[in-house]
This record gives sequence, structure tokens and C-alpha cells, in this order.
Amino acid sequence: MGHIAVLGNGSWGTALAMVLAENKHRVKLWGRDAVQIKDMQQRRENRRYLPNVRLDDLIEVQEGTGSVVRGAEVAIFSVPAQAFRSVLRDVKDELADEAILVNVAKGIELHSLMRLSEIAEEENTADHYVVLSGASHAEEVGRGLPTAIVAASQDKVSAKYVQDLFMNDKFRVYTSDDVVGVELGGALKNIIALGAGISDGAGFGDNAKAALMTRGLAEIIRLGVRLGAKPETFSGLTGIGDLIATCTSVHSRNRSCGLMIGEGLPTREAIAKVGMVVEGILTTEAAYALARREQIEMPVTEAIYYVIKETVKVDEAITGLMNREKKHE
Amino acid sequence: MGHIAVLGNGSWGTALAMVLAENKHRVKLWGRDAVQIKDMQQRRENRRYLPNVRLDDLIEVQEGTGSVVRGAEVAIFSVPAQAFRSVLRDVKDELADEAILVNVAKGIELHSLMRLSEIAEEENTADHYVVLSGASHAEEVGRGLPTAIVAASQDKVSAKYVQDLFMNDKFRVYTSDDVVGVELGGALKNIIALGAGISDGAGFGDNAKAALMTRGLAEIIRLGVRLGAKPETFSGLTGIGDLIATCTSVHSRNRSCGLMIGEGLPTREAIAKVGMVVEGILTTEAAYALARREQIEMPVTEAIYYVIKETVKVDEAITGLMNREKKHE
Repeated sequence: MGHIAVLGNGSWGTALAMVLAENKHRVKLWGRDAVQIKDMQQRRENRRYLPNVRLDDLIEVQEGTGSVVRGAEVAIFSVPAQAFRSVLRDVKDELADEAILVNVAKGIELHSLMRLSEIAEEENTADHYVVLSGASHAEEVGRGLPTAIVAASQDKVSAKYVQDLFMNDKFRVYTSDDVVGVELGGALKNIIALGAGISDGAGFGDNAKAALMTRGLAEIIRLGVRLGAKPETFSGLTGIGDLIATCTSVHSRNRSCGLMIGEGLPTREAIAKVGMVVEGILTTEAAYALARREQIEMPVTEAIYYVIKETVKVDEAITGLMNREKKHE
Repeated sequence: MGHIAVLGNGSWGTALAMVLAENKHRVKLWGRDAVQIKDMQQRRENRRYLPNVRLDDLIEVQEGTGSVVRGAEVAIFSVPAQAFRSVLRDVKDELADEAILVNVAKGIELHSLMRLSEIAEEENTADHYVVLSGASHAEEVGRGLPTAIVAASQDKVSAKYVQDLFMNDKFRVYTSDDVVGVELGGALKNIIALGAGISDGAGFGDNAKAALMTRGLAEIIRLGVRLGAKPETFSGLTGIGDLIATCTSVHSRNRSCGLMIGEGLPTREAIAKVGMVVEGILTTEAAYALARREQIEMPVTEAIYYVIKETVKVDEAITGLMNREKKHE
């Protein structure tokens, strides 16, 4: 049996490598930053992104993609959404035809407005494509706390395979065939996390935040269904599950970034303070463009878009949402 | 034009009276406790349940139900679910035939396993019955923070009437015709709030809590649909909206009670410490019984039931949930 390749040594890639190693799989973990890779090799710890977790002996950390991917039965992509296409292009010729490609990134490619599975198709690597998503803070998975996620694929055998690979008594994996719904739930929920942060930062209460999240979810479902997702997927672990975990957690970068924007910080400064990719900002831009293209009414997303673009103040945005015409829910 | 009767001077009844008064309606507010009513009359404040909010001059506080209900165009019932039937019986002969009956309690009558609208039907008072529900902490409504809720009725005219009555630029009301879904969402979400508290109290993380809430919601939808609710209602303000507000808030009694149970306190002591009705405990018992009657699989509710009945330890309950057979979501 071959090994598992994990591309991307952020907190999530590292945590997933740990789950696989715990299940007795050999893992090769690749990261872009040579200095950091060397540090991980020497210390047997990812001090930057997943500190205080000792790397399992079954995890080999490497800086070249070739030797990580070659001979792998499964390749797990754990890089930012905007980098997915370029990393995929780098490695795809080394990937075996029968290898399963698992994507754990959550986002939409901004310039093309494509979902990541669409990119995989365009790059002819979608035969055994699985998206793995759900409510899953890496810090908690690294500490062995119970977690439940979803493996979605149009290829049932691949989804089952990935389920078997990861499942253990602390890491529960459900399967699904709704790739579009699982991808969009994971990506679009970051818009709402950003909005929840903005609402909190501006001093609105739990009622307003709950309403924003609920009505935001309703419009995300509208967009998702138009793009081919099943509506019920958004009620699941990759939809509201992930949304709840993101919006209630101190770990979420999207929520933190929104919090600072709500407190009055310009968007650029808030992003700089977070110091990492804030996927929700890019996803808001992508969803705003998709809503226009598909002519879907998305007032919450629009309001967040105008707030992060600094063309509308937070108070005006909330007042605008509260004063729309009377509606049937 | 007649006045509005509000039955129940808890935090929510008082906050709703304030919204109505702000919209220039005359309100008569009734409470059971004569001493407290006198205090409210003298101080023009509900010091016990909604402190620091000055009662509007349009609100008249009274201790007899008769004069409150007589001549009212709308009667709002804001009493605990288990007390709804007896208060309704007390006042129904005084209610005008054309009066709208609005219920804001969230629960299931334990001995009959009836929803509150079923009780209204049994008592022949359901002609203009509206349930008003959503994510709405009274403390925030009392402070004028933005809030959005739902008025549901099988009688469209009554739902619209209640919408017009309450709606203003800080209090947004949607209408719905799914009485069953709105009632069950509001009631059953308290089971999950209890579970979320238990999970937090026992030291599980955000991932586990999000999974518990999501899978809990899935089984609540299963039960709800069997009992006649529309599934999409559970994705709305009275379903996940209310769930999010309850589970993320420090205001929730159900969550607080769960927290103490999760930390190891016996259920009876936890309830005593909360010091008020913990509706989620009763609702868990009711839902457990309903699931058996309807033969619906509800593993999360069952686990919570056994934990509050102290027949299973929290760790065992969570491990049990994690180790169920592999599933399609």
C-alpha cells in the first residue's frame, strides 16, 4: 500500500496528517517554506501553526512536492483556495491516475469565480475527487477532541475510501454525493462569519447576529441551489455546522477580521492585523459577483460587501437590512 | 380601537409590551405575583425580570386577568408552556370572539405531549391563533437592539395583523403559515441548547458542540416533519436562528443548566441553581416520548435524555454518538 500525501503544512494539513498517522497510515507532508519545513523536521513539531502537538513518527515532512506526491494513493490539498490551481498544476503529472484527490480548502477562485472542483475538472484531475469539509478547528483535532466532518464525491467508492481512511473514535466522517453543496457551504459560510464579527464589533447584540446569520444562510442556500447544490446539504455539518463553529469560536480569522472592521478599522488594516489569508473577504467579493451574474437577491452579502469596500457604514448597512419591505419568511 | 393584553410579566412579556407601546399601542400587562405587580406599578420598572428599562406610559400593569383581557383586540400569552392551558382556561370566556390570540411560549405540554396550538384547538380558541417566535433575548429587545422574529398562523390576516402591530425599525417581523414548524423549532431547540451546555461543561470543544448541534437539528427536523412541519422552517429564524442565539448566549437558562450538568452537578441541583423554569429539561422528556411514539431515530436527544436522567455519564454518551456505524449524511 502506498502512502498519503498532504500538500500544505498549515494547521489543518498538519492536524489531518496526525489523524491519518494515528490510524497507522504513512504520511508525507509538504510545505512551501523551506525554513519552516527544516524546523518541523528537526523539532518534530509545527511550532508556527499547530504548536504543542508532537508529530507522529509515521509523518515524514518534506520540501519537494515530487517525492511527496509520487506513489501516493491519496493526495490531500490543504493550501489556500487561491493557490489551489497552481499547486495542482505543479503536481498533477506526478499523481497516479488512480490516486484520490482530496481537497480541504474552502473558497472560490476569485478571477474565474470557479469552485475548486471545477478547477480540478478543468485541469483533468477530477476522476477521483473528494471534498472533505465540516466544523473542524485544527487546534481541537490536534488535541484529539471529538470532531465530525463530511467526505463528498460524485464517485461513491472514493468517498467511502476517504471515510475509512480518516474515521476513528474521535474523528467521525460522513459521506455525501453533493460536492457542490459541500464546497459552497464551506466557502460561503465565511461571508457570514465576517458579518457576525462586524455585527459584534459594532456593538449589536445576539438577536441581530442570529438574524444576520439566519438570513445570510437563506440567501447562501438560494445561490447554492442555483449553482447546483442540494438545499439540505446546507443544514448539515458542512453548512450550519461549520457556520456555528466558525461564528462562535475565537479561533476564526474571518470572525476576528470582521470584529475589527465592525469596531471601525479600515479593511486593509484589519486584514494586516490578522496576519494570514482572510478567505471570507475574497469569498464575499466572489459571491457578490456570482449573485450579480446569476441575478440572485443577496441583501446580507451585499451589505457586507459594501461595508468591507467602505462605501457604506456598518450602522447604515444594518438599518438598511432592518427596513426592507415586510416579508413572508 | 381596543388595547393589547399581555399575560405574563416575565422578561419577554415585558419586552414585548415595550415594543407595542413604542408603536403607540395601549397595553395592559398582567402578572400572577401581586407583590411584584405592585412593585412594577409603583416603580414603573420590572426590577426582577427586565431591570433598567423604564416602563412606557402606555403600559398599564394589573393583577386581575379579567380587566386585562376584556375588550382586548389581541391577547399575548407569555407564560411558561406548562402553565399555558390553565391561564387560557382562566381567561378564554372573557376573550372576544374576534380577538387574536398570540402565543410566545416555547414548549410542549408534558402530560399530553401536545403542542401549544393543539391545546388552543382543544380549548376552542384557535380561530385567530398566532405563534410569535424567533431569536430574541428580551434583554436586548428591552434595550432597543435590532431583532427579527416570525409571526406564524394558518389565518393569514391574523399573521399580517400581528406583523403590523410589532414591526418597527428595530423589530423586524416576518410572517409564516407553518405554525407546527415554528412551534416545534422554538421548543425543540432548547434540547440542543441543553446539549451544547453539557458538551461545553464536560470540556469538549467547538467541533464537538457544532456536530452535536447539527446532528441534533437533523433529528429535530425528522421529528418535526413527521408531526406536520415544513422542513425549511427549521432553517429559518425560528429554527437555526433561535438555536444560534440560544447556544451562543450567556443569557440562556437552558445552556447554563446544561453547563452545570456537564461539569458533573446532579440535574436537580443544576435546575435549582438556575432558579427559574428550565424548559429544555421538560422538552427533552417530551421529545424522547414523542420519538418513541412516532418511532423516529433521535440519538442526540436520547443521549441528552439519559444524561439528564443520570443513567449514562457524559463521556459515555459522547463516545456512544461518535462510534455509531458509518453513515451517509
